[in-house]
Amino acid sequence: MAIIEKPVSMHDGKHMDIVMINALLHSLYDVFDTMVGLDIEPGIPELKQDRVAKGDVSGLIGMKAEGASGSVALTLTQSTIRGISRELLGEEIADSGREAADLAGELTNMLVGGAKRILAEKGHDFDMQTPQLLVGDGHEIVHHCSGQTVLLPVNVGQDVFYIELNFI
Amino acid sequence: MAIIEKPVSMHDGKHMDIVMINALLHSLYDVFDTMVGLDIEPGIPELKQDRVAKGDVSGLIGMKAEGASGSVALTLTQSTIRGISRELLGEEIADSGREAADLAGELTNMLVGGAKRILAEKGHDFDMQTPQLLVGDGHEIVHHCSGQTVLLPVNVGQDVFYIELNFI
Repeated sequence: MAIIEKPVSMHDGKHMDIVMINALLHSLYDVFDTMVGLDIEPGIPELKQDRVAKGDVSGLIGMKAEGASGSVALTLTQSTIRGISRELLGEEIADSGREAADLAGELTNMLVGGAKRILAEKGHDFDMQTPQLLVGDGHEIVHHCSGQTVLLPVNVGQDVFYIELNFI
Repeated sequence: MAIIEKPVSMHDGKHMDIVMINALLHSLYDVFDTMVGLDIEPGIPELKQDRVAKGDVSGLIGMKAEGASGSVALTLTQSTIRGISRELLGEEIADSGREAADLAGELTNMLVGGAKRILAEKGHDFDMQTPQLLVGDGHEIVHHCSGQTVLLPVNVGQDVFYIELNFI
C-alpha cells in the first residue's frame, strides 16, 4: 500500500468540502470569539437538496481560485440576527429589516474574508466577489456553480444559523 | 443555470466525506445520548497528513458498498476511555489496558453499526468488516484504501476523541 502523504491540492476537488468547511469554521470561531463574544457549536453537515434559505436574511459571496470556484452563503433568522446584534453592538436593531440585512452582510463578509486569509496561508489564493444580500421569507439562495450544496448548521445559544457552500 | 435537485449518489464520490460525516455524527449522538449519557460537540474537520493515531487505543472498521469503499476509525486516549467507562458502566476500568481496548472496540462497533443503519435508510447498503483493535503510544492507523483521511475531532467534557474516515 502506498504511503499517504500527498499535499492537499485544489485540483483534487474531492475533498474541497472539508478544506472549505475547515477554513470557514476557523474563521467563524475567530469572528464570534473576538468580535461577537458568543459561543458557537457546529452541528452535523448535510447535503442540501433545494435552494430555499433556512434563514430570513442571507449573504452570498462568490469565490474563485485556480482549479476551484463556487460560493459561500450565511443565512440567519431575524431573531438570531437580533441576538447577535445585542452582543456585537450592545443595542437592539430597528424593525425595518434594513439594519438586519446590513449586519448579515457584514457577518458574511467577515466569515468569507477570514476563510480567504486562512486558505491563502495554506497556499490557496481565492478571489472574493462582491457580496449579494438576499432577504424575505422563503427566499432562494442560488449558488454560482452547479455543484452540490453542503449545509452546515451552527448553534449559537438557543438559536441556529447556517453556512452553505457549493464548490466545483 | 440548471436546477440543482439531483439525488445523492454513491457513485459521485465527490461528496462522500459529507455523507459519511453526517451518518457518523448522527450515530455518535445516538450512542452518547441513549447509552453513554455524555454531551458531545463535534469540532472542525481537517485533512490528516500522516497515519499516527491521536489516541492510545483505536478501533478500525472497513466498509464497502457498490461504488464506494473505505474505513472508519475511532481513536481515544486512555483518560477519555476512563471517563466514558465511568458514565457507561458506572465503574472504573482496570489498568491493564485490555478493558480499555475492549470498550474502544465496542464504541467503534456501535458508531459504525449505527452509521451503516442510517446510510441503509438512505438507500446506501454498506457491508461492515470485522473490526481491528490498535493499541500503543504512537500506533498507526492504516486505512484500507489509499484515499485522503479526514480527521474529525469530537469534544466530550474536557476531553477530545477523534473519528477518522477514508473513502474512495
